[in-house]
Amino acid sequence: MPMPLWFAFDRGFRYHQCLMKSLTEYLWFEVPDRRGFVNITATIEQLVRKSGVREGLCLVNAMHITASIFINDNESGLHHDYDAWLEKLAPHAPTAQYHHNRTGEDNADAHLKRQIMGREVVVAITQGQLDFGPWEQIFYGEFDGRRRKRVLVKIIGD
Amino acid sequence: MPMPLWFAFDRGFRYHQCLMKSLTEYLWFEVPDRRGFVNITATIEQLVRKSGVREGLCLVNAMHITASIFINDNESGLHHDYDAWLEKLAPHAPTAQYHHNRTGEDNADAHLKRQIMGREVVVAITQGQLDFGPWEQIFYGEFDGRRRKRVLVKIIGD
Amino acid sequence: MPMPLWFAFDRGFRYHQCLMKSLTEYLWFEVPDRRGFVNITATIEQLVRKSGVREGLCLVNAMHITASIFINDNESGLHHDYDAWLEKLAPHAPTAQYHHNRTGEDNADAHLKRQIMGREVVVAITQGQLDFGPWEQIFYGEFDGRRRKRVLVKIIGD
Repeated sequence: MPMPLWFAFDRGFRYHQCLMKSLTEYLWFEVPDRRGFVNITATIEQLVRKSGVREGLCLVNAMHITASIFINDNESGLHHDYDAWLEKLAPHAPTAQYHHNRTGEDNADAHLKRQIMGREVVVAITQGQLDFGPWEQIFYGEFDGRRRKRVLVKIIGD
Repeated sequence: MPMPLWFAFDRGFRYHQCLMKSLTEYLWFEVPDRRGFVNITATIEQLVRKSGVREGLCLVNAMHITASIFINDNESGLHHDYDAWLEKLAPHAPTAQYHHNRTGEDNADAHLKRQIMGREVVVAITQGQLDFGPWEQIFYGEFDGRRRKRVLVKIIGD
Repeated sequence: MPMPLWFAFDRGFRYHQCLMKSLTEYLWFEVPDRRGFVNITATIEQLVRKSGVREGLCLVNAMHITASIFINDNESGLHHDYDAWLEKLAPHAPTAQYHHNRTGEDNADAHLKRQIMGREVVVAITQGQLDFGPWEQIFYGEFDGRRRKRVLVKIIGD
């Protein structure tokens, strides 16, 4: 079934538009206190648009092991409750209760808190947008702040 | 090395069969009590078959921030233990202990419980099936029920 | 815009190199004690190289529901702290406190501990390598050892 060459070539371009795309970006944070939560939803939405991905997955993860990425409500009372609750489950003081702090650190509690809140989220991208429920927002959770830390955003899809 | 055009075109069709596929579905739940667990494994398996994906990833996430998706054992005694344990770590009452409940809600504990149990799971698809260990089952975990909520299923792969 | 056939064909090969790749591997563990942590970072790095994926995602998950995969620091004092903390949040004994143990098991606590530490991690692959922060390492966390268990590694990308 011979076809004109321009047709085969045109199909080639359409394949190109369907192939897997990816975007990698690094976000920097420096939270001025030991602990804090930062809403990064708008930034992630911008990166999804930049990626050109219509259908795919977006991974957002803390690259430091005393910080979290999590999805929950953008409500300051709740953030207060998270902070008080994490401090109850994994208290900062007395710092000598943790073997990790014998290395000279005082942040063992931050490593524990981060396990409760999680390292990463994976979010669906549908029709070029974060596919979110009505109250879902993405937060950076800092448990050992006052220094610069990075978050990785990796988007793949077509 | 000139090749007949039909050969190049035939290759094109084979590319098409290899390109990334995706499937997006939304599941609705209305758990009649405040808390409960629902086994959704069979539904997710059906969606994997529907997607036609042979090798890929399946994301399942709660779209509401007082619910979880998690993978564990389908054993009612264990589910009782999870419920009692979560209530110990993040008690519902007294509701006034949580700042979030000053907004008029009484579900702050549900936001905390959901962080322990997690928002999402990512499951491998191998040879067209969920690639599961012998006891892995997927559950919807409700911590503030008696209303309709959604779960997102996103499958990508080839 | 007519193009020579060899050019269209050459593009075809380049498409081929861009198509989604995947790798599936299973790792076996038998931790000699009830609980323990095993650093599996080097093994996962080898599998990423083997996959040939340059840009993509790497899922690593426990296939058993009393074990975890998590990312944190490779520091023995911290691992001691994790173990003590998990035992405080979800004590092994008395085993009769858990309904799950009425089935004849004594590992209900392990199912709870695994929810804190997580089932899986999803890691970005950038330029053919795990895209990690300075201290990120991947661990297998065992909470009910002394028998053989599997971990799944699924890599997808291009």
